[in-house]
Order: sequence, then C-alpha cells, then structure tokens
Amino acid sequence: MANQDDLFKKVVSHAKEYGYVFQSSEIYDGLSAVYDYAQNGAELKKNIREYWWKAMVQLNDNIVGIDAAIFMHPTTWKASGHVDAFSDPLIDNKDSKKRYRADVLVEDYTAKIEAKIEKEVKKAAKRFGDAFDKKEFLATNQRVKDYQEKVDTTLQRLGRSLGKEDLADVKKLIEELEIACPMSGSRNWTDVKQFNLMFGTKLGASAESAMDLYLRPETAQGIFVNFLNVQKTGRMKIPFGIAQTGKAFRNEIVARQFIFRMREFEQMEMQFFIKPGTQQEWYEKWKESRLRWHLSLGLGEDNYRFHDHEKLAHYADAAADIEFRFPFGFKELEGIHSRTDFDLGAHEKFSGKKLQYYDHEDKESYVPYVIETSIGLDRMFLAIFSNALQEEELENGSTRTVLKLPAVLAPTKAAVFPLVKKDGLPDLAKEIIDDLKWDFNVLYDEKDAVGRRYRRQDANGTPFCITVDHQSLEDKTVTIRHRDSMEQQRVAISEVKAIIHKEVDMKSWLMKME
Amino acid sequence: MANQDDLFKKVVSHAKEYGYVFQSSEIYDGLSAVYDYAQNGAELKKNIREYWWKAMVQLNDNIVGIDAAIFMHPTTWKASGHVDAFSDPLIDNKDSKKRYRADVLVEDYTAKIEAKIEKEVKKAAKRFGDAFDKKEFLATNQRVKDYQEKVDTTLQRLGRSLGKEDLADVKKLIEELEIACPMSGSRNWTDVKQFNLMFGTKLGASAESAMDLYLRPETAQGIFVNFLNVQKTGRMKIPFGIAQTGKAFRNEIVARQFIFRMREFEQMEMQFFIKPGTQQEWYEKWKESRLRWHLSLGLGEDNYRFHDHEKLAHYADAAADIEFRFPFGFKELEGIHSRTDFDLGAHEKFSGKKLQYYDHEDKESYVPYVIETSIGLDRMFLAIFSNALQEEELENGSTRTVLKLPAVLAPTKAAVFPLVKKDGLPDLAKEIIDDLKWDFNVLYDEKDAVGRRYRRQDANGTPFCITVDHQSLEDKTVTIRHRDSMEQQRVAISEVKAIIHKEVDMKSWLMKME
Repeated sequence: MANQDDLFKKVVSHAKEYGYVFQSSEIYDGLSAVYDYAQNGAELKKNIREYWWKAMVQLNDNIVGIDAAIFMHPTTWKASGHVDAFSDPLIDNKDSKKRYRADVLVEDYTAKIEAKIEKEVKKAAKRFGDAFDKKEFLATNQRVKDYQEKVDTTLQRLGRSLGKEDLADVKKLIEELEIACPMSGSRNWTDVKQFNLMFGTKLGASAESAMDLYLRPETAQGIFVNFLNVQKTGRMKIPFGIAQTGKAFRNEIVARQFIFRMREFEQMEMQFFIKPGTQQEWYEKWKESRLRWHLSLGLGEDNYRFHDHEKLAHYADAAADIEFRFPFGFKELEGIHSRTDFDLGAHEKFSGKKLQYYDHEDKESYVPYVIETSIGLDRMFLAIFSNALQEEELENGSTRTVLKLPAVLAPTKAAVFPLVKKDGLPDLAKEIIDDLKWDFNVLYDEKDAVGRRYRRQDANGTPFCITVDHQSLEDKTVTIRHRDSMEQQRVAISEVKAIIHKEVDMKSWLMKME
Repeated sequence: MANQDDLFKKVVSHAKEYGYVFQSSEIYDGLSAVYDYAQNGAELKKNIREYWWKAMVQLNDNIVGIDAAIFMHPTTWKASGHVDAFSDPLIDNKDSKKRYRADVLVEDYTAKIEAKIEKEVKKAAKRFGDAFDKKEFLATNQRVKDYQEKVDTTLQRLGRSLGKEDLADVKKLIEELEIACPMSGSRNWTDVKQFNLMFGTKLGASAESAMDLYLRPETAQGIFVNFLNVQKTGRMKIPFGIAQTGKAFRNEIVARQFIFRMREFEQMEMQFFIKPGTQQEWYEKWKESRLRWHLSLGLGEDNYRFHDHEKLAHYADAAADIEFRFPFGFKELEGIHSRTDFDLGAHEKFSGKKLQYYDHEDKESYVPYVIETSIGLDRMFLAIFSNALQEEELENGSTRTVLKLPAVLAPTKAAVFPLVKKDGLPDLAKEIIDDLKWDFNVLYDEKDAVGRRYRRQDANGTPFCITVDHQSLEDKTVTIRHRDSMEQQRVAISEVKAIIHKEVDMKSWLMKME
C-alpha cells in the first residue's frame, strides 16, 4: 500500500514537472478539486478525445456526434431526476463546523472494524503457520465473528435508512456508534440533510425574470433533449447512436485522488437508441465493443475488469463498469448502462412533446430504449498517464524515468536534435522540423549533451528522437531513436516521416479494435 | 436591408433543417441566447477549432496550447478588473418590470432620429432626381440639420456620462428625452445601476466554507495565471505564446443575432509574451498573420477589413478588430490586442507572487508584455456558414441550394451512392465506405433518385459524391461529382481516396498561409 501511495505521488509530481497537469489557479493557492491541463496535458487530452470520437463517430455509420451547451432549460433536470435525487446526505459537526457525508462517516467506522478483523487474521496466520485455514478461523473465532456481525448490521441498517430516506435514523446510527468528528473529536452533530450536487447559477439580469439554471451534472441529457431533431434532420434509422464530449460539473463533498474525481470534469458519452426488447443484446455488444477500444491502446489486458452492478439506478435495467487498475486500486473508468426508456419517457411527460420513433419496417411508433456508454476523459487521462510512468533499470546500473504513452496519444511525436550547436547542424535540424511540423507536433532541442536530451524526451513521453550529426551533412541520414527500446537506427532523412507515420497514425491503432 | 434580413433568416433555418445548429432545450421551448450544435454543426465546429489549433500551436514551435478549467480562483477576476468593471448600466421600468440597457435605450432613440434623416434624404432624392447632391442636402436642410444635432448632442452626453460613470445623468437624459418603455409605453423608470455580466455560483457544501465562484467570462486569464508554470516546465524562451480554446460565459442583457452573441460561447485565444518595447512590431505581425489565416480559407478578401480601436480598454495600448461581412453587416470576428503588462502585473499584485521572466541573453528580469489574438469560435462558424450558403441558378432554369463550405472544414467529406438498390451495387458502395471511413467522415445514401441525392448533399455541404453503377462492377470505376462545379469524372475506385485527400487535407490549406 505504501508502494502504491508512493507511485501515485510520483504520478502527481511528474504531471506537474513535465507540463501535463497543474493545480488550478496555483498562484492563488489553488482551487480544491479543479485542475488545469498544461502544454503536454492539453495535447494528450485532445488526442484521447479524438481517439474516442474517431472510434465512435467516424467509424460507425449509424452514430453521429453533437455538441450541446452546458446550460440547459432547468426542467431538463426535473425530468431526469437530478433536482430531486442527485444529492448526498450531509452532517455538520457543531464544534469544528466541518461538514461530512453521513454515509461515509459510517462506512469509515466499519472500515476500521474490518481492519481489526484483518489484524486478527494476520496474527492467527503467523501463530498457526501452515495449519492456518482462514475460512475456518473467520467462522469460528468469537471475537472476529462479533466484529463481522457489527459491520454487517451497521451497513444493513445504513442501507435501509438511506433506502427509505430516513435521515433521522442515519443520525441516530451515528450517535449510537459514538462516531466522533475526525478533526475535533467532538460528538456534537447537527441533523443529516440532503445536499444537491448540482452547481446553480442565474440567467438574466432582472430580479423578476432571472431563471435558476444548473451547470449540467452529465452530458447525457443534452443528447436526450435533441434526440428527435437529430433523428429527423439526420434521417437516422434505429438502431443509431448520438455521441458527445463535454464538460460536466458536480459539487462533490469528497473530491480527491487528483484528477480522478473533480468538480469540473469532461465526459465522453454515447446514447444508443434501440427497439424495446433488444436491450440485452445491445448491452452485451457495447460492453464488449468498449472493452476492445480500451485494449487497442495496449495498456495490458490484466489492468481491466468488468464490474456488474447489483444495485441499479432508478433509470437502469442493467449496468456494468469497466474498471481499471489505477495506482490506488481497481476503480471505475467507464460505465455501460441499459437506461430503458426512462429518460425519453420523462422528457415526454415534462415537455408534453412526443419523443417517439416511427419504425417504417415494423409500422409502429415507440419510445426507443437506450444503451449508454459513458467514460470520464480525465479518468482515461489518469489511467493512461499513470500506466505509462515507469522507472527502468538500465544495463549500466543507472535508472531512467520514461513515460511510455501509446505513441498515437503522445503530445509530441518527435524531437529533433543537432549533435552540436555549430557547423550548420542546427540549420539542418530546423529544415527537418519545417518538413515534419505539417504532419506532427515536433520540437527542437539543442541544449545539453544528447544523452540528457534523450532522458528529457523519455520523461516527456516523446516516442522518437532524431539526431543530426556531421555525417548527416554528407549523406543525408540521421539517427532515429525509439523511446521504449532505446534502439537507434541510421536512416535517410527522406524516410523519417514514413517511419513516424507508421507508429503514430490513429488508423493503424484503431484497426486493432477490429 | 430586407434582403439581408431574408438571407439571415435562411441561414438560421438552413442551420436547423440540415442538422447544424438547434435552439438549446427546444422541447422545453428553448433557452434564450443558448444554442446546441447538431450532428453537422459539431463536426464543422470541431474542424474550425482544429484548423486554428494546427495553425497556431502545431506550426509555431514557440507556441504551446493549454486547457485550463472554467472554474478559477475568484481573486483572478478581482485582478483582471472583471469584478469591478465588467458590467452594463441597466434600468428597470417600474410598470412593465422589464429591464433594459440604459445606453441601448438612448442609442435606439437616436437610431430612430437617424431613420428620419434617411427618410428625408430619400424623399429629396426622389424629388430632385439627378440634380440631388446628398452632401449639400445634409448641410443645408434645416430640419435635417436639427435632427443631426439632436443625435450628436445626445450621443456625446451619453458618452460623457458613461465615461464619468455618472449614472444619475444617464437617467436624467432618458427622462429628458421622454423615452418610453417599448413594452408598456410607460416613462416610470428606476435609477440606472451597473450590473455585472459574470455568472456566479458557489463551490463547496458547507454554508460557512462556500466560496463564491464565477464562470470565466474569457479564457485569457487561464493563460495568465499559468504563465510561469508553462514557461518553466516547457522551457520556453521569450518571445513565446500560450494558446487555448474553451467555453466562456457572459450574462448578456441584449443577446441576439443567432450564434453571434450567446451567453455561453467558445473562444480561441492566444497570448504572446514579449519583451517590453517590442509590442508595436509584434502587434503588426500578429494582425497580418491572423488575417492570412482567415484568407487561407478562401471566403473572399473583400469580406474582411481591419477596424482600429480609437477608444482603448484599460489594459491595452493598441487594439484592432478583424471584421467580417456577416449577413447583418461588417462585425467583429477577431480581436488583436496589445495588452501591455497589465494582466501579469495585476496578478503579481493580487497574488503576491513574482511573475517575471529572466532573460538570459540580456541578463535582466522583467514582466513580459503581451499581444493577444482572440477569436470567437461560434462567430467563425457563423461567418463560414453564412458565406457558404448560396442559391444558384442552373442552366436548366432551376435553382439549387448549395453550402459551399471550404472542403477542409466540411462535416462529411464524401457520400457514396449505389445507383440502384440491387444487383450488388449497395455491397460495392459499402465496400468503398469501409475503406474510406478510416480516413474521412463519409456517408451512405441509397434513397431517392441520384439527382435528389446530389441536391441533398449540396445542401449538406458535402464536397464529393461517389456513385456506384453497373459499369463499376465490371471495370472497378465510379463517378465522382464535385459539389461546387457539379462536374463528374469517371475514375478508378483505387484513385478515389487520393482525390479526396488532395482537396480536404489541412496541410495543403494551411500552406496557403505561407
């Protein structure tokens, strides 16, 4: 665990040091759970977004993309259920004035008991050695059984109270368990209240005419309200999908883990409209298709797993996450949800407009069912970045830090170095750049020894380094060095572009999905 | 004028009918001055953004791009002057409860007098025929001279009052002119008050710890607060630039003209950091360079003009607009501003952090000066879209509606048609699509006669239509039809990809800037 924490700290500091992610408004001491993408991060993020868009929109002739505004009519969020149900139960400590999620307080309490169980298990395992049978120990040791019962009854009661929205009982539970404020140690709590996670603002200048707006908490509703306009003007036939990427906002109480959970974040969502009754088939297809998209980037099959939801949201009849092995463990990266006709049906009801599709083949009208694929762009960024950051021991005993980003996503595709700053080598290097820059992001570096420049680009994630030396002036060749293998080839300058294209073009990477 | 209005109405309705722009939340009767980009609009917008990014970031080795959050620390907007000075003078009518911009009320009043002058001019021109000299008429006709004097003294007084922030005098002026509420006809006005255009929201759950935030009214400040982090981690040397695209928000009172002035809009901004004293030179360079970018798209040189500002904003020592001929006249499309060290200096003061650059060549530290180029992505969209929409009379006397978008920006690059829905032609058409889709957005259409399919793609802005007929099965050729010339060529299927690449690749379009 310490090791994982260390790795995560390295990820955060490397992201800053190499211009990937900065804390927002750092000169003003930052803004909690908000981050800015720096010069390399902006390019990586853009490339991930493009990789998704190409796979979803360009390659599927029955999926189109839209770009709906962040501001939407407020009734949208009544219909979607966000006004009434998108909230967390919060409790304040009267002494410290600190606010907590009431359910997290209880869960932290049970986690501590579980840690005690784990401790007993370890102790016993040490004592009994090979003879130790964990299952039997858990079933027979009275102290452990008592602990486990405490955990189970506590979580069951919490689930029941939240399910019935009995917030008074959640408070009673906190009091009975004698949970204290982690800051002050005080047990002087307020009542538990629901707090809506949407950010509000006001549109219009006049006090009388001002309209309460929300910053959208998800991009999906921008697709649902435009469903019929897109279907008609785009002459779409079911099954078809509408995709979009864009910002969403949630006033999270517990926002942490760097860019994993932010208050301002970007989603990449696709809603696939289907005939009612076919949802199981399409749900399975999209689970499988989205996993193939992830695997095409080559981060390692072992780093992904499906997590099927047992407890379903109010709008879903099936749901699964694609989880990724982050530095802090397996966590949700993408969700695939069978949303039924919940959203379109709700918008019909709240808007009074029909949102039906007429099926020319079956000669009937219906409200389509929907399969959603929803991925956090920032989480995808973190998955790729943290997976790429590696420390390698080299043959000579030294170590190098290398950011093994998939070449297709790397912010800079090649760096061009003159071996020395004279004899016309910089001019030739710049000539090469002037040719390559029309196709790729490239950079020039003439500072320090070439070995140090290689290390800099390794840490930067640049897949190719091209060095111009004196021989280059004579025979128009350069060395091209590969980031991951550190191998160097001598090639004609005229071949360089094709070598880079072969490794970085999206087309060949996306073909791996097939 | 009627003609221009008609054209603009056509632009708006074509944008909806062909899936470019929808009113936001239309099923809930819309949200004022907010729009959604539909399936074609999202692609066009994305292509414009990419065309700008490539020209600014990829082709300039001293410009990098970032992606800062919409949420920023609120002190940012104290430093930038937006909290104190980003406001409009508003007045309420007590009877109708309607709110107006006080300066617009006065300007509408003078516009009516100017309309009277124009009427007198027209009447006289009719009466005097060829003998009519407009200049002399304006100088000698007493009634017209009185009108003109009224306009001039009114606007001068308004300018003076606003300049001194004497809002009481603005109200007095409205009362003296006996301006009535256009809704109710009432002259019962409140005082004039400044109203800030920033949207506010609150971050954090606890009442005690909630922080008042603003949605950024411009993207520029996200660049300034990150200036030193980017310079250091990116090892940038002055002169260098930081670019970004992203959403900004302004609570406009008078938001109109479709997507020209919206409450939620997207900017593409670049801040170029330079040595103090060199601003005049760089200002001229960037004016010229940005105009070349516009001209590379081929919308016609006559449609652009520079407008140099005489009245400068508090942060600028020179400023110009690139204006474009919109359907409603020449209006600002892009601004080039010499912003001095105003912003970095203000952030130094408010943050207490040094924001200086150490110049290794000159061995001195300084706060850089800044040249800004700032373009509205939505305005650029409107410029291109409205310029492209044309009705052409054909030789046979019929007319066609054609959207002559620059091919590089067109949402769909090619449509593939089987001549008939049988004999294996659809299969061959789909085979061609399966090859082309890796490189371009393409679509398939088998409905209606080919002539009607051509018209549909003309109106859609698709530069190429490829038709598969019976001959195609024999000799592996197809016809490729060009949107603008309507010419058709018979070509080998194997050549199609290269023909499209030649016309749509960004590289060849951007090279026109050189």
